[in-house]
Amino acid sequence: MNPAIKSAAEYAQRCGMKPYVVEWGLRGLIEGWIHEVTPDRLSGILHRGGTVLGSSRSKRFFDISFREKAYENLQQRGITKLVVIGGDGSFSALNQFYSDFGVPFAGIPATIDNDIAGTDYCLGVDTALNMIRQSVDSIRDTASSFSRAFVIETMGRHCGYLAMTSALATGAEVCLVPEIPYDLDSIAERMRDAKAHGRNYLLGIVAEGVGMGDSLTRWMGDALGMDARLTVLGHVQRGGSPTVYDRIMAFKFAVAAIDALQAGEKNQVITFADGTFGSDSINNIADTKHRVDPDLIKLCEGLSR
Amino acid sequence: MNPAIKSAAEYAQRCGMKPYVVEWGLRGLIEGWIHEVTPDRLSGILHRGGTVLGSSRSKRFFDISFREKAYENLQQRGITKLVVIGGDGSFSALNQFYSDFGVPFAGIPATIDNDIAGTDYCLGVDTALNMIRQSVDSIRDTASSFSRAFVIETMGRHCGYLAMTSALATGAEVCLVPEIPYDLDSIAERMRDAKAHGRNYLLGIVAEGVGMGDSLTRWMGDALGMDARLTVLGHVQRGGSPTVYDRIMAFKFAVAAIDALQAGEKNQVITFADGTFGSDSINNIADTKHRVDPDLIKLCEGLSR
Amino acid sequence: MNPAIKSAAEYAQRCGMKPYVVEWGLRGLIEGWIHEVTPDRLSGILHRGGTVLGSSRSKRFFDISFREKAYENLQQRGITKLVVIGGDGSFSALNQFYSDFGVPFAGIPATIDNDIAGTDYCLGVDTALNMIRQSVDSIRDTASSFSRAFVIETMGRHCGYLAMTSALATGAEVCLVPEIPYDLDSIAERMRDAKAHGRNYLLGIVAEGVGMGDSLTRWMGDALGMDARLTVLGHVQRGGSPTVYDRIMAFKFAVAAIDALQAGEKNQVITFADGTFGSDSINNIADTKHRVDPDLIKLCEGLSR
Amino acid sequence: MNPAIKSAAEYAQRCGMKPYVVEWGLRGLIEGWIHEVTPDRLSGILHRGGTVLGSSRSKRFFDISFREKAYENLQQRGITKLVVIGGDGSFSALNQFYSDFGVPFAGIPATIDNDIAGTDYCLGVDTALNMIRQSVDSIRDTASSFSRAFVIETMGRHCGYLAMTSALATGAEVCLVPEIPYDLDSIAERMRDAKAHGRNYLLGIVAEGVGMGDSLTRWMGDALGMDARLTVLGHVQRGGSPTVYDRIMAFKFAVAAIDALQAGEKNQVITFADGTFGSDSINNIADTKHRVDPDLIKLCEGLSR
Repeated sequence: MNPAIKSAAEYAQRCGMKPYVVEWGLRGLIEGWIHEVTPDRLSGILHRGGTVLGSSRSKRFFDISFREKAYENLQQRGITKLVVIGGDGSFSALNQFYSDFGVPFAGIPATIDNDIAGTDYCLGVDTALNMIRQSVDSIRDTASSFSRAFVIETMGRHCGYLAMTSALATGAEVCLVPEIPYDLDSIAERMRDAKAHGRNYLLGIVAEGVGMGDSLTRWMGDALGMDARLTVLGHVQRGGSPTVYDRIMAFKFAVAAIDALQAGEKNQVITFADGTFGSDSINNIADTKHRVDPDLIKLCEGLSR
Repeated sequence: MNPAIKSAAEYAQRCGMKPYVVEWGLRGLIEGWIHEVTPDRLSGILHRGGTVLGSSRSKRFFDISFREKAYENLQQRGITKLVVIGGDGSFSALNQFYSDFGVPFAGIPATIDNDIAGTDYCLGVDTALNMIRQSVDSIRDTASSFSRAFVIETMGRHCGYLAMTSALATGAEVCLVPEIPYDLDSIAERMRDAKAHGRNYLLGIVAEGVGMGDSLTRWMGDALGMDARLTVLGHVQRGGSPTVYDRIMAFKFAVAAIDALQAGEKNQVITFADGTFGSDSINNIADTKHRVDPDLIKLCEGLSR
Repeated sequence: MNPAIKSAAEYAQRCGMKPYVVEWGLRGLIEGWIHEVTPDRLSGILHRGGTVLGSSRSKRFFDISFREKAYENLQQRGITKLVVIGGDGSFSALNQFYSDFGVPFAGIPATIDNDIAGTDYCLGVDTALNMIRQSVDSIRDTASSFSRAFVIETMGRHCGYLAMTSALATGAEVCLVPEIPYDLDSIAERMRDAKAHGRNYLLGIVAEGVGMGDSLTRWMGDALGMDARLTVLGHVQRGGSPTVYDRIMAFKFAVAAIDALQAGEKNQVITFADGTFGSDSINNIADTKHRVDPDLIKLCEGLSR
Repeated sequence: MNPAIKSAAEYAQRCGMKPYVVEWGLRGLIEGWIHEVTPDRLSGILHRGGTVLGSSRSKRFFDISFREKAYENLQQRGITKLVVIGGDGSFSALNQFYSDFGVPFAGIPATIDNDIAGTDYCLGVDTALNMIRQSVDSIRDTASSFSRAFVIETMGRHCGYLAMTSALATGAEVCLVPEIPYDLDSIAERMRDAKAHGRNYLLGIVAEGVGMGDSLTRWMGDALGMDARLTVLGHVQRGGSPTVYDRIMAFKFAVAAIDALQAGEKNQVITFADGTFGSDSINNIADTKHRVDPDLIKLCEGLSR
């Protein structure tokens, strides 16, 4: 997120705006933790993981009286437009705020789950994928050295994007995700065949949304007679210095967001689809179910049976 | 390159072909260093940098008698199609081979310079960019701790893609590339202004094609009165475990190459442009000058003056 | 382990011996998976995680008839001395083998748990610690960005070495290990005090031997009113390219092992204690409880209460 | 350096002292850039490379009138003892300051060159070695894939420690350092022999103090008929997140420094020799030539001929 914050502030400045940052998200809007951007405030943050501004959920923002407080904080400082970096929840909150007070905003999708409708990419995904890759590559060292089966559970809530991409990128033999029906019997046959042809270890990647981490591990141990272990990657997937792809995408998302606001858009989310930046209304995005790239699903079907 | 080798072999197998690998490139074609792909030959290579097959230049391949030898080696094994991973030189050699003996090939562009016409992406670029990022992020630690100016020279031959993308991704203050005319006086003014506003260190990124590494460093020392150092990244930029983006792109390029051969294409290079895979004739590619994305150039113009 | 394998083979060669490698450990001894070392067999392995030779447990080795088979395999090849890299189990097996057939061996301690008596260091520990560090540094990004408490469970079986060293190296606020009695009430008071002084996130590191991962996480959520999460690092801690310290120590352990065998030692484990290499009998090591450095314990006591 | 700063401040606090930090070193002493340590000032810095306090050389400190100014700054704040993290230059400056005004100090050796007499270890060395390792491991990917010779120049001024340790850790075939006379003819013979036995690439590591980077590269190209390249690692070796070993050593050095001051020592440098912490007078250290561990030299002699 830090590259997006920095890019948005710098580009806004170049467009003749006077940028501020809000610390701790919605809570900071209410509390007035809002600071004008000075040269040193955003210096040296491009390579840091997480967000230097902090993030928080705020139940109080559902309450109109607190939103009024937030609005006053903006008015006092002459702030007339907002850029929000986050997910569905943040976008809905800002949309409500727009309905209340007419403060336009542009949303930049940022969640490693990559599950926001209308956009092929959410900030943070490439960094998360490379953290997963490093973990799986290390686990592979152990798996091949000890002839073991390893099941690795990735994040992604109800979306299998992280798991599928990681499985392809690390050459996993098995991949279970919510988007693809799986067939354990057929997997077992395929694995026995691989063992018969000299394969001495196995890697399986499971999206947390499938809820099969434990049982796939036990099943691999039982059905294949291998020493099988489960690793739940958890928050190791988040954080870490942003990759180049994420930094450049942050830059482009930020420019698109400022441009959208300058072009008079009111409550849109910036999207990146089929290689092009665009924007979509928050209502469309909230009403549409996110669909993973069908090509990716097709590539992974062979790993689910 | 390893992910591309592995993906091409596996996908070819799934398509009912019988894949072979050629070691040491053109030299291996001549010498007959050609092996049928067995399960263990390409096992555990996805995460390794470089290429397990080896690469080499072969002057002998310009000689028809050695190309005949190569052709015999293929005939003996019943090999009727080729996938070649590399750059212009490899593609031209294979094109000559196709003219001689009618052996169709599909080329997969792979060079960290990202300077092959017709394609927005060449395999290896994302990995190289992330190696550069890590180096520049480290150098930034030193620059900011010691109030120094650092000039970092990236690879890229006559192409500024690596330098421009790195400069944006690492927040460098100055970027000199062959594609953009630079103005040192105006840069000096901008830097003095930044210093006056509290900036205590500077990073400049220079593409090797500009040939300005040494002189920009001296100039920074003289014009700005700072302790200035040059780091030529050199081969630290190559190698390293492929990133997820490179592995997935390798997978897609390999699938596109096999598909092109199966569709009857004869001497095409696989391209990725505007988010879509396609192919282009080797002649078109050789005759066209590679153009860097104009948007990227526009973003970097501010860093050259 | 790979640097130890390579160093032992190369040093043995320089001493005029003819080194062999045994694949898949004890099982390979029985099956005769024993190969003379040629220049390319151990080339390019120094930087790879895990072990290229493979490792396995073998129940059959408890059976004298299989040990006889192993002995025959050695005799056939003229192998008269063994170097074994591993832990207590491997050392005991080789000791039994020595009692049976008089084949001398030298043991090199290698386990990330760092829990072998008589030695301050076991190969792999520094690499594991740096893998943990990277994971915890990433988690810290998330913790500080979201004002959360994180509990991270490290490996180490009944030994708290990994957890204590990681806690000091990452600046964790809480550390629970088997070697130190903990006091949750006093920790709660200390944490409340830290929060009152502006601390917005917390990291706790727990050795798996304490079995407190789940309950400490719940407790942090309840007692401190923070959003608290548990991450069990698991096998992410193993594997990964060996650090310089591990490679150099592997080198020195290997030299010490070969030297010990040349000096006529029969069934000793190489130790590194107080900065010096030595050796100790396998019986001493098996009979002694491993003690963690009392200074380290003293430094961590403040994190357990 | 950051872990040392943080550890020293925290341990001083625990000992009942009131710690301050000085920004920008000697210059900050003169200018009065001196701040009391508050909980958030040193929060989240353990994993950052470089130093958050900044470092600088100050010629003015040679002038007694400026040292008087520095002394006044300390007196005003009631600061009576100093810990200085750095090298010979910083220690001498503080020693002069002690002669002038009697302010005791303890020095913590920190330079990646590892060339301070009396101590086996200087902070930052392990981190630098692992940065070098990653670079050399990447270069090895290219070297082996393209059958090339690579010469890599490391830092270290007149000391070969970094080069020797890196050469052993990365399995380089050649290593030239100031401490060992080299014999190019004998190296050539050894390399030709290796090539004859199937070796297809070569790595040579040269300490900058030997000044042989360019000529060894040319020589490898000429004498061995290989495509040979030079990479000068430069400032890529500095910076980067401190390794666990460096963080723990920083902790121990900091504790030893505070303890020394509490025990009444006046102008000593903390040393780590033969596995034990001690201290030595600045005069001894300045008068003694630093000696690299003779065992390390012995191990590397084979790589210099």
